[in-house]
Amino acid sequence: MSMPAKAAVFSAGSWGTAFGMVLADAGCEVTLWARRAEVAEAINSGRTNPDYLPGVELPENLRATTDPAEAADGADFTVLSVPSQTMRANLADWAPLLAPGTTLVSLMKGIELGTTMRMSEVISDVAKVGQDRIAVVTGPNLAREIAARMPAAAVVACTDGAVAERLQAACHTPYFRPYTNTDVIGCELGGAVKNVIGLAVGIADGMGLGDNAKGSLITRGLAETTRLGVALGADPLTFSGLAGLGDLVATCSSPLSRNHTFGTNLGKGMTLEETIAVTRQTAEGVKSCESVADLARRHGVEMPITETVVDIVHEGKPPVVALKELMSRSAKPERR
Amino acid sequence: MSMPAKAAVFSAGSWGTAFGMVLADAGCEVTLWARRAEVAEAINSGRTNPDYLPGVELPENLRATTDPAEAADGADFTVLSVPSQTMRANLADWAPLLAPGTTLVSLMKGIELGTTMRMSEVISDVAKVGQDRIAVVTGPNLAREIAARMPAAAVVACTDGAVAERLQAACHTPYFRPYTNTDVIGCELGGAVKNVIGLAVGIADGMGLGDNAKGSLITRGLAETTRLGVALGADPLTFSGLAGLGDLVATCSSPLSRNHTFGTNLGKGMTLEETIAVTRQTAEGVKSCESVADLARRHGVEMPITETVVDIVHEGKPPVVALKELMSRSAKPERR
Repeated sequence: MSMPAKAAVFSAGSWGTAFGMVLADAGCEVTLWARRAEVAEAINSGRTNPDYLPGVELPENLRATTDPAEAADGADFTVLSVPSQTMRANLADWAPLLAPGTTLVSLMKGIELGTTMRMSEVISDVAKVGQDRIAVVTGPNLAREIAARMPAAAVVACTDGAVAERLQAACHTPYFRPYTNTDVIGCELGGAVKNVIGLAVGIADGMGLGDNAKGSLITRGLAETTRLGVALGADPLTFSGLAGLGDLVATCSSPLSRNHTFGTNLGKGMTLEETIAVTRQTAEGVKSCESVADLARRHGVEMPITETVVDIVHEGKPPVVALKELMSRSAKPERR
Repeated sequence: MSMPAKAAVFSAGSWGTAFGMVLADAGCEVTLWARRAEVAEAINSGRTNPDYLPGVELPENLRATTDPAEAADGADFTVLSVPSQTMRANLADWAPLLAPGTTLVSLMKGIELGTTMRMSEVISDVAKVGQDRIAVVTGPNLAREIAARMPAAAVVACTDGAVAERLQAACHTPYFRPYTNTDVIGCELGGAVKNVIGLAVGIADGMGLGDNAKGSLITRGLAETTRLGVALGADPLTFSGLAGLGDLVATCSSPLSRNHTFGTNLGKGMTLEETIAVTRQTAEGVKSCESVADLARRHGVEMPITETVVDIVHEGKPPVVALKELMSRSAKPERR
């Protein structure tokens, strides 16, 4: 038998910890980097991460440290899971510590503000590695369900199919089923724009618009995501798969989704300030809606739902007014 | 101004009545055929259909009759809404009464057992009219929400685009937004297979498998629907639209969906007999799963989710066993 693969996970939030658990359950030796000593201590001595995954018992082969060099040392896979807008600064600190030849794995679903770069582009830029050393894990992966070892499918994407297959093998468990894909652009856009559409659907749910409206918003939201993807060179079929449709439906079905919940609170009439105050963790879509809209404008792609979310979240437009405008565009063929 | 269009609706179930209300709200003169005199009487004198749409006030320009000849007389649009497996026998009775040149409009989402014909094919066969005189209305259209005049988008499909546009104009209201499409095959398959996938998702929901599993089942369910559609000559993009994805998501999100609810009861451990006993109206997917599976086999298309539903609903396989088999197929690329 070959040696178990080694994996480092930065950092110990809910999805980082849950994916570290998946890797450990699949047989990897996993080291989780935690920013705070009490989190590392709770994981090492108590086998739990009470702040982010309360009640979940973590496996023995997942350890934690606050020392990034110790975490990174000898890792075959270096998994990155931090808020998207902090990725560049964080990775600049960690880049000198990375194990030679390690594959960098992004769990993040966002687009960098200003540069409009996808996370794999930021990673390549900061760590100076080629796209064949960067993989993306995405799909319908609500962290709390995976931590409870409920069944989930996922997508493992890398431009180099062999790398995707190695990561697939390293994280395949009875409850977590990864499928490989080489369309990194499509997989990353599916995840990033999903957070924005999830906000829109949450707003509609909060307003009580019903499930017919929800079905339509998800459909038209995925259509505008696909338009953007095609303009950027993605395969349109990616968006009909787990990284597009699957992730979007899971987000929009779940009370566990931060983006969906954030939108629901807005739709119920909370102000933006009140909504931010009751949201403990980052709702990625709140920032990503701006960078996605920016990216779309640069490529001349129409994204009316994304623009509506920007209007509501950043321009203070009342949801009732914005959604009514969106729903009353003129009658037309479904495709042109 | 031109005369208002005349529409006949057969019959006064929940979706037939709700779509009749949409046509009336859009300005048509609508006559609803009801099988039972007390239903027609309640509509004409009380402006309600208490059996199927309790609490909904119906407009003045929607009348009801138990005489099919009176309903059919002079109708520009003859709308058909009966359980799919009874369409052939019902239409044989009504065909001699149809107004010359009327457009036949199908609201039905099923595949005929034995013949594996789509509803527009049955209509063409029985009424001896060409496909350019048959239109289909489909999409995310939960009847109770539409009756409450909550916002919904829909698809109006006909091989003749001009006919689709006339029907679009006849049913466009502030709350009901129809889009035209010429892919009748795709629109009908999307609706029929949706009922089957809705059963599967209901079973998973009843078993408490979570929203990640739900996202995956919907994604893979739409993928197998698309494979069948392509084999039959449909446009694959139809399934990413309102008649595919939109309808499927609305069904799988809603406690109002009969197919989803039927599956949820099975997933919670009710026997088939108990589930049928508590289901008041027809859950189309219970019959259509057999005809869809039959159609797929005739065209050599693999539909593992549909086959699983047939095993559970008609072969008595326990849902836990069937779903586990489905989820544990071997790891692979997402597309091949």
